[in-house]
Amino acid sequence: MDEQERTRQLGELSVKLARFYKGKINSIPNVPIKKLSDFSVWYTPGIASVSLDIAANREDSFELTGRWNSVAILTDGTRVLGLGNVGPEAAMPVMEGKALIFNYLGGVNAVPIPIKVSSQEEFFTVASSLETAFGGFNLEDIESPKCFFLLESLQKALSIPVWHDDQLGTASITLAGLINALRLVGKKRSDAVVALLGSGAANIATAHLLEAAGFKSGNIIMVDSKGILEPEREDMDKLMLTNPWKYKLAIRTNSERRRGATEFAFKGVDVVVSASKSDPNFMKQEWIRSMATDPIVFALANPTPEIWPDRAKEAGAKIVATGRSDFPNQINNSLIFPAVFRGVLDARSKGVNFRVMVTASEEVAAYVKDPTPERIVPSMQDLDMFPKVAAAVAYSTVEENLARKKDSREGFYNRAKEIIDTNRERYSSLLDSGFIKGADKIG
Amino acid sequence: MDEQERTRQLGELSVKLARFYKGKINSIPNVPIKKLSDFSVWYTPGIASVSLDIAANREDSFELTGRWNSVAILTDGTRVLGLGNVGPEAAMPVMEGKALIFNYLGGVNAVPIPIKVSSQEEFFTVASSLETAFGGFNLEDIESPKCFFLLESLQKALSIPVWHDDQLGTASITLAGLINALRLVGKKRSDAVVALLGSGAANIATAHLLEAAGFKSGNIIMVDSKGILEPEREDMDKLMLTNPWKYKLAIRTNSERRRGATEFAFKGVDVVVSASKSDPNFMKQEWIRSMATDPIVFALANPTPEIWPDRAKEAGAKIVATGRSDFPNQINNSLIFPAVFRGVLDARSKGVNFRVMVTASEEVAAYVKDPTPERIVPSMQDLDMFPKVAAAVAYSTVEENLARKKDSREGFYNRAKEIIDTNRERYSSLLDSGFIKGADKIG
Repeated sequence: MDEQERTRQLGELSVKLARFYKGKINSIPNVPIKKLSDFSVWYTPGIASVSLDIAANREDSFELTGRWNSVAILTDGTRVLGLGNVGPEAAMPVMEGKALIFNYLGGVNAVPIPIKVSSQEEFFTVASSLETAFGGFNLEDIESPKCFFLLESLQKALSIPVWHDDQLGTASITLAGLINALRLVGKKRSDAVVALLGSGAANIATAHLLEAAGFKSGNIIMVDSKGILEPEREDMDKLMLTNPWKYKLAIRTNSERRRGATEFAFKGVDVVVSASKSDPNFMKQEWIRSMATDPIVFALANPTPEIWPDRAKEAGAKIVATGRSDFPNQINNSLIFPAVFRGVLDARSKGVNFRVMVTASEEVAAYVKDPTPERIVPSMQDLDMFPKVAAAVAYSTVEENLARKKDSREGFYNRAKEIIDTNRERYSSLLDSGFIKGADKIG
Repeated sequence: MDEQERTRQLGELSVKLARFYKGKINSIPNVPIKKLSDFSVWYTPGIASVSLDIAANREDSFELTGRWNSVAILTDGTRVLGLGNVGPEAAMPVMEGKALIFNYLGGVNAVPIPIKVSSQEEFFTVASSLETAFGGFNLEDIESPKCFFLLESLQKALSIPVWHDDQLGTASITLAGLINALRLVGKKRSDAVVALLGSGAANIATAHLLEAAGFKSGNIIMVDSKGILEPEREDMDKLMLTNPWKYKLAIRTNSERRRGATEFAFKGVDVVVSASKSDPNFMKQEWIRSMATDPIVFALANPTPEIWPDRAKEAGAKIVATGRSDFPNQINNSLIFPAVFRGVLDARSKGVNFRVMVTASEEVAAYVKDPTPERIVPSMQDLDMFPKVAAAVAYSTVEENLARKKDSREGFYNRAKEIIDTNRERYSSLLDSGFIKGADKIG
């Protein structure tokens, strides 16, 4: 069965199941109700005292309500998967899927909230208004450069972690993979020359994260649809206005002032990370042949990578990673965001920064005890990785002075593990007792 | 134990339990996950087909996502219970309690969303942006007259039901009680003279609903802190600007042009509905003695009614209702909103209007087979009332041309009952299997 046919069948099944289940997550009471008079404690009149406590100390909302474990998944539906601007209603199924992963892997109470807004300023207003109800925000599927503006401005304005998974999640798991890949080929971060193909959400963030992780800005070469980014390129003045994030990177990366078409970005570089075109013929074998010794190639376009792994290997690539689960080395955000959020939530963190993200990536990389060219990152099967990374993240927010709640690394680990395990056990009990309807008939 | 001491103890227990449970509702997966590759159907790549279906027909978001059963509980925290403007963080415990009742009695997936906004226009913007993610909005604990503006403008602008429970919920259950009370004393709606003490959210809405239910506008006498409302009152010009909703009622009610202090509103009237001052000495016995034969007195202030029921009876009141569960005839919104939302959600209704609400009130009243002065409304124990009222509401939205999904009354009833029952059984299974932690130690 070819790729297209498989995707078509998965899509058909998705629609059929969406019509049957009508929503992938659900809310249930978390407290005992044995008689109706219990509501006098869960609701009025008793609850007034809880409100007064929080009114006296607003930070108590993290200890007396579900805020500590709640994350809003926010999107305006302007860049949903590869589908483009399909709007907030059509974004909902994807956000629900994300919420499901948040819950299953991270024990996080994620609330999918696609919003209908007419400008990035309105998005900012709406998101800001939601801050007091949540312990963190996960932005998702927002077009670029709007997503850069929103991530930056919301992180600055709010006292909860704001994450844009298409930027930060992708960057973090990419870095984790690169850490092990470079270790395998015996190259240092501070020496490695890295070409980033595609200068959208993922690779702009990857560039920033690489800098924070010890890669040299000058050793990063960014490429967009017009070719290699460099300060003399003719569209720089325009870029300064339309996309200052890309502009600033164009100024400080590429110290050798390389210029020209995509293929010139490969010449002699150690690593290529491509997040550009879902076309298996996009990346040519001769481009890989022009790289330095032991080339590392991440071809991350979805659903189809920029070159098939076997063709990349044939051209000399030592290590190949893609975004797909059916090849080795899947660079998959789901290895990162459930753990990062478990960590920042457990520490009641005021934010998340690149140093915290580097810690997350290092921990994910370290989880792979003996990396090989076929295993540079864990897989989603490695369920015990999540509380480990969560603990590293939580502890890192303590070190960064972002945590409202301090604990030892071990303390954070035990807590994260308990939350994730209990949540999954509760789910399993519903599955076993038949309360997830139709489970016997499906899959 | 006196009242104050009981409330203090309930408050203490509420805080203790809030610290233990940290949130009263929780999300869990609603779909089977048996292996991690199932995510290729719940998430990418399969989910793209679901998004495309909705992009082609946005109304499909009610059939392919959880929108059909999701309600946002929105507040700005400006009038939380009797505590005043304590802000969105402090409003959260109350909204969580409300979500719990929504879930337990109505099987509704209610999401508590207190928002931080600086104006009613900003509240409107934020709420509007959330429309596409929810099947309905429940506004809560918003100061007046802002709440009138928001209810009116959001109902007009959006294609989902918008409810403000402090207005519409209270009005609906009040009407239900009045229907049976008037039946008991053998008086007709079209003849009854009704004084409404307090002209805030509850009684402004009650006036509107009474009009829709067949009471004569001219037979309604409204009273606020300055006395009886009438067109010649000296603050009318000011009121026209600051509170047009109250102003308009002042113009069209009170056809006899009664004027003066609160006590003059009682003289010869059939019904007094008071939602004013939580002080058991507020309403004087001689005021009740001045009413028409078989006086009906609803003293609804919380936590303490405007007169104790025994004192009202002593003064000749034939039927007395309060907001409290420890006296007969509790006028309790929880008898209304879970059922109304179950109904409008099941019909995928585009809105809710006063005719739908009258239907709900009639159905609640009719549930009480043989009303007595001690039982004019059902109690929360009457769990089988909820699907009945839900069906009446859903069918009413079909008749009002508001329903996206049409069905017979019986069809709606069966569906509502199944949803509510299954939800409660699922919860019970978690309670029984120990997944609601500490349940054995509490209550």
